[in-house]
Amino acid sequence: MSSRFLSPLLRAKIPTSSGNNASISEMSNYSTFSFKGFEVKKIAKYRRGVISCDPTRTMASLTDKNSKNLTMDTLNPCVRVMEYAVRGPLVIRAGEIEKDLEKGVSKPFKRVLKANIGDCHAMGQRPITFIRQVLALVSYPELLKSPDFPDDAKSRAKEILQGCRGGSVGSYTDSPGIEIIRRHCAEYIQQRDGVPSDWQNIILGSGASDCIKNILKLLICEVCDKKPGVMVPIPQYPLYSASLAEFNMHQIGYYLDESKGWGLDVSELQRAVDEAKKNSHPRAIVIINPGNPTGQVLTRDNIEQIIKFAHKENLMLLADEVYQDNIYAQGSKFHSFKKVLIEMGSPYSEMELASFMSCSKGYMGECGLRGGYAEVINMDPHVKQMYLKAISAMLCPTVLGQAVIDVVCNPPRKGEPSYEQFMKEKLGVLEELKLRAKMVEESFNSIEGFKCNPVQGAMYAFPQVKLPPKAIEAAKKEKKEPDAFYAFKLLEETGICIVPGSGFGQKAGTYHFRTTILPQTDALKDMLKVFRTFHEKFVKDYS
Amino acid sequence: MSSRFLSPLLRAKIPTSSGNNASISEMSNYSTFSFKGFEVKKIAKYRRGVISCDPTRTMASLTDKNSKNLTMDTLNPCVRVMEYAVRGPLVIRAGEIEKDLEKGVSKPFKRVLKANIGDCHAMGQRPITFIRQVLALVSYPELLKSPDFPDDAKSRAKEILQGCRGGSVGSYTDSPGIEIIRRHCAEYIQQRDGVPSDWQNIILGSGASDCIKNILKLLICEVCDKKPGVMVPIPQYPLYSASLAEFNMHQIGYYLDESKGWGLDVSELQRAVDEAKKNSHPRAIVIINPGNPTGQVLTRDNIEQIIKFAHKENLMLLADEVYQDNIYAQGSKFHSFKKVLIEMGSPYSEMELASFMSCSKGYMGECGLRGGYAEVINMDPHVKQMYLKAISAMLCPTVLGQAVIDVVCNPPRKGEPSYEQFMKEKLGVLEELKLRAKMVEESFNSIEGFKCNPVQGAMYAFPQVKLPPKAIEAAKKEKKEPDAFYAFKLLEETGICIVPGSGFGQKAGTYHFRTTILPQTDALKDMLKVFRTFHEKFVKDYS
Repeated sequence: MSSRFLSPLLRAKIPTSSGNNASISEMSNYSTFSFKGFEVKKIAKYRRGVISCDPTRTMASLTDKNSKNLTMDTLNPCVRVMEYAVRGPLVIRAGEIEKDLEKGVSKPFKRVLKANIGDCHAMGQRPITFIRQVLALVSYPELLKSPDFPDDAKSRAKEILQGCRGGSVGSYTDSPGIEIIRRHCAEYIQQRDGVPSDWQNIILGSGASDCIKNILKLLICEVCDKKPGVMVPIPQYPLYSASLAEFNMHQIGYYLDESKGWGLDVSELQRAVDEAKKNSHPRAIVIINPGNPTGQVLTRDNIEQIIKFAHKENLMLLADEVYQDNIYAQGSKFHSFKKVLIEMGSPYSEMELASFMSCSKGYMGECGLRGGYAEVINMDPHVKQMYLKAISAMLCPTVLGQAVIDVVCNPPRKGEPSYEQFMKEKLGVLEELKLRAKMVEESFNSIEGFKCNPVQGAMYAFPQVKLPPKAIEAAKKEKKEPDAFYAFKLLEETGICIVPGSGFGQKAGTYHFRTTILPQTDALKDMLKVFRTFHEKFVKDYS
Repeated sequence: MSSRFLSPLLRAKIPTSSGNNASISEMSNYSTFSFKGFEVKKIAKYRRGVISCDPTRTMASLTDKNSKNLTMDTLNPCVRVMEYAVRGPLVIRAGEIEKDLEKGVSKPFKRVLKANIGDCHAMGQRPITFIRQVLALVSYPELLKSPDFPDDAKSRAKEILQGCRGGSVGSYTDSPGIEIIRRHCAEYIQQRDGVPSDWQNIILGSGASDCIKNILKLLICEVCDKKPGVMVPIPQYPLYSASLAEFNMHQIGYYLDESKGWGLDVSELQRAVDEAKKNSHPRAIVIINPGNPTGQVLTRDNIEQIIKFAHKENLMLLADEVYQDNIYAQGSKFHSFKKVLIEMGSPYSEMELASFMSCSKGYMGECGLRGGYAEVINMDPHVKQMYLKAISAMLCPTVLGQAVIDVVCNPPRKGEPSYEQFMKEKLGVLEELKLRAKMVEESFNSIEGFKCNPVQGAMYAFPQVKLPPKAIEAAKKEKKEPDAFYAFKLLEETGICIVPGSGFGQKAGTYHFRTTILPQTDALKDMLKVFRTFHEKFVKDYS
């Protein structure tokens, strides 16, 4: 927003101290003024983002045929401000180092260990055989004749192909996905929760991210007098901050309590929403359970409290439950928001809820295949029509991603030929992850200056690390967040790539990082050893 | 935008005749007013969409815990106004009829023929064996040991797997895609055009639609004093109108000249852009070549004219070239915008261009696998960084979709074991389409009241049809567009599903529809026969 487009009254009040760029949020105090006794509200007062304040330059570059049309001045400002830490500058640098290593450049390590992202197969996890057999069969149905594939894989493949027009996965499907797969998802959920699930509420997508963005998009309300807001945990998974920035929505952060194992306290939810109401319309609350990056698993009691809070505030519930199979801690159990909400009865059972699931996590780890779904209940039927219309312009999610979701929801049953191998592979992965969750927690806690909550679920540890004041100063000199400074050093010296806590959000003055627990056990042991050595040296260097 | 948020001066002028809902465009005349000698511009004056004018109700439903949060009042207004005709109400009705037929409901036809969408395999086209073999191999690498797969398919698969982290297609790839696949794309383009292509300019996506939306998104500029505009042909492929509506951008329609085979006239481009400048900042021009839904193939001379025009107006070029393999007419040839622009030399060769390609069309027709790419040249390097950042939050496009693109860009070569079968299948599909293009054109032109331009390329015919005045009246009574009225009757009476021209845009007072040329030859012959009978009866009924 450039001052040229503000009313003269507003223009006079814009602080000039912020230099050539001023952020809209700085201006929000100046967006209401009175005129002849009326309060005049600027509709766009919540426009967000750092936007050039030199309109002449902006306009010139749009009309000057000797300059580019798309410049940093004329680029979508929401794209400019969005950040996605999981693939941020650190990861870009890690890629450069990998290239250097390939070229034979000498480094103090032999390979980059990408502990920055929950990328299971990249870390050596083996795909589940049954999933891949079904994929091969639907891709190349000629194989249905082969004796090398078990009958249950063939029957799954045939059922999927019957759901495809012309019997080919190369055909477009309905935009919310193939009916039989949606039905399998609903059956799976019903079996998990013991409460009914309607297949028409299942909307498949190209990964959970796709499903989440399609729901968030509905909540944009650019013409409200206040910016629409969505509550997200801090620390949070940065898809949420990135999408809210892209959609020009307000992120209402609520802090998880590190001292209580990253628990969720309703009084903190209340504080966050009350504060946010000053300049936004809270519309929804995101809960990530099990937590990413924090690894906590919510108790049923806690979930009930959150539901009651959301009902009181009339918030739509967005339950990110992609780690529902990743539960490790003794006594921890996954409770879906859907189940709890329905069992609580009216009025809670009528609340609007979207729950998200993915084939990228769990025991499958099929990140690259981009399969996911949302179960959306209690949505206004007209709104649902609009939702379905909105996704239709992208035609359909990848059919092979849909096929993976089908297998996840319709796995081999007892008595079927693939059952034993499937269960062995599935439990093998989950058992390994459980061991590593414990190993990471214990190793980190044995390092002086580290504090790591138990990894009850999901795929990450998010330890707090004490940084020496000199390191914090050095970071400031380099204009880096102290935890990013630490992470860059770690990367350059050891090849270990983690994500600094600032990418997820953390309490001011605390420093964290997220690492996955995905490296294979031996590699993980090595990583933790290297980590310890690095940290001790780092502390020494900066004290 | 509700009147409550307009200044009192504006509020007074809002027409009340439009009832409870008023469209913003109606209000645009009222968005500038003077105050103490200053001209006051409303920043949000271009806010678009039909939005409730009852703010009390809107706000109430956001805060009233007994009503839903997401209602038609509080839904993203851009989602509300967007339309995607290819999957519109007609197609929904077609789905209902299909369900009825399954249940045994008696209809005057046995099955629904979905000629509404370029869904090749759904219409009986057979997948290319080599593509599917590679897919099966990368999905289930166990098959690399099988003697039933040819060596060239295996070598393709191995190369793709080497590009995947951990050797699995289940790993995330870099957000713009696997490097080796991007390199193959660049080599393919270079060979096609005879001008260099840099693999770092190739950005893979989950289908061309994904690539197109990711580029359009960059052009959003909500803080300009005028709405950003994108020129699109009329008739156009409705992904563009839907995306522009979603992004709240201005669609600048330029008419294709039906009387000149849907040719593109620069004076019409000039008229369109000049008119649009009154209330928008034109930023880009979309050219669909070969045309969808119109089937024309642009001459090189015409492309040069368009490039010169775009340069004069400093527009980014968005070349939708997904039908580049679908050229049928004698003398027609595909010229890529990239090739022409580079060969024209400076200053044209420095223009910003994005060209889009897909695995859904051509001879592959792999719509469900969601593979596509954009080649983006001359983009400001900082903007390119932002573009790459923006796509990173979605992690990566489906790896199996990427694999299909790899095969398309790196097909079997002469001398390789699969070459002959591949070429036979590829040319077989294209030859069939060529025959059908001719057949459809000739059949339609032989029906009284139909006028159909030659289908030089792509997969559709877009005939004009004269509708009797009584039919137009009857349509108005049903509050339908006359061509939609016609299409609904056709569907109900014959089971043939087409898309009315109003979904793509057409000159006022003319009526068209789009049909694919994809039904297998015998089915197509039947369809054309049924069409003729229907039309003759329709004309009789309404005269």
